Amino acid sequence: MRQFAGIIPIRTPGRGLIDVTQSVSGWVEPHGLRTGLLTLLCRHTSASLIIQENAAPEVRADLEAFFDWIAPEDPARYAHDDEGPDDMPAHIRAALTGVNLSIPLIEGRLALGTWQGVYLFEHRRAPHRREIAAHLAGE
Amino acid sequence: MRQFAGIIPIRTPGRGLIDVTQSVSGWVEPHGLRTGLLTLLCRHTSASLIIQENAAPEVRADLEAFFDWIAPEDPARYAHDDEGPDDMPAHIRAALTGVNLSIPLIEGRLALGTWQGVYLFEHRRAPHRREIAAHLAGE
Amino acid sequence: MRQFAGIIPIRTPGRGLIDVTQSVSGWVEPHGLRTGLLTLLCRHTSASLIIQENAAPEVRADLEAFFDWIAPEDPARYAHDDEGPDDMPAHIRAALTGVNLSIPLIEGRLALGTWQGVYLFEHRRAPHRREIAAHLAGE
Repeated sequence: MRQFAGIIPIRTPGRGLIDVTQSVSGWVEPHGLRTGLLTLLCRHTSASLIIQENAAPEVRADLEAFFDWIAPEDPARYAHDDEGPDDMPAHIRAALTGVNLSIPLIEGRLALGTWQGVYLFEHRRAPHRREIAAHLAGE
Repeated sequence: MRQFAGIIPIRTPGRGLIDVTQSVSGWVEPHGLRTGLLTLLCRHTSASLIIQENAAPEVRADLEAFFDWIAPEDPARYAHDDEGPDDMPAHIRAALTGVNLSIPLIEGRLALGTWQGVYLFEHRRAPHRREIAAHLAGE
Repeated sequence: MRQFAGIIPIRTPGRGLIDVTQSVSGWVEPHGLRTGLLTLLCRHTSASLIIQENAAPEVRADLEAFFDWIAPEDPARYAHDDEGPDDMPAHIRAALTGVNLSIPLIEGRLALGTWQGVYLFEHRRAPHRREIAAHLAGE
């Protein structure tokens, strides 16, 4: 088995689900593996990585509304607000959704389901430069 | 190191936690590895994979009740209902619980704790055919 | 590629986020790999593993308060209380935060972000001995 590791940079426009499926497969495919395992780690505590529905945009809007409800911007709730009212809700959302994904590679393709896309979930209001650490092993 | 990849099919009877530990270990064991890493990806956005208590059935009933509370079937809350009132709650539950698991293999066995089982968490009301993409590497 | 697997024991003082970054890197570094993948599995259903902010301690206090709110100790809510009122909330918190982490190793170091630490999230009130199953592959 061979392996590769690197950093995939992502620019976000602020809060929301950003489809990074093409950025990720663009990093994987040049390595030319047929079978393997891709692992991704979002190197931040106020953004996360999830696999979600890639068809209906309402799903993403509803997901964002859900996280606004469960972890609202409400300074009365949190002791931590070093970077503003969206700081602590961002940490909570990242804890709930996770910063890791692992995707098998089968027959030269990421084995995602038909309706699955890979999303970086930006939890801060402002645009950010984010980094995804990536590892690929296989042959 | 050697590697193997494939699809584990799972039929679900509708909403709830389905123990897939035997299906998963039944896919792993014939490969005869002593040490390695198993990675699983649920190829859907309305079902997920979690490791949970495999003894007391009340734990699973309480977990299901918790997710009914946190992501209820309530059309007034969601814009997305293409496939019915259980559609968007299913996406939220999948985002909260995740579609990935990685389990080390030690001394020829999955290194799960004594009380841990692997569950496919079906979030839709109707029975479904689900697919778990699996990757195993080791020797 | 070479691989290693083992158990990292962790003692917890009871409920809260315990920084295990040093314990984990102390297990990884003696293997002397430059590039690879570390995978961790918490072998329990009432404790979990998360990557979180390692600087401001208020973040950890706010996270604990959030999980007290979302999964309170309230016997009226749960059928399962075999081990006391903190038993079922612990299972819910573990389901929401997950028991798995995978961290790429790049240039001889875990590719965590500057502000990321690895935490074992103890969900039970009493001190516990916990086990993390670890797998490392690379070269």
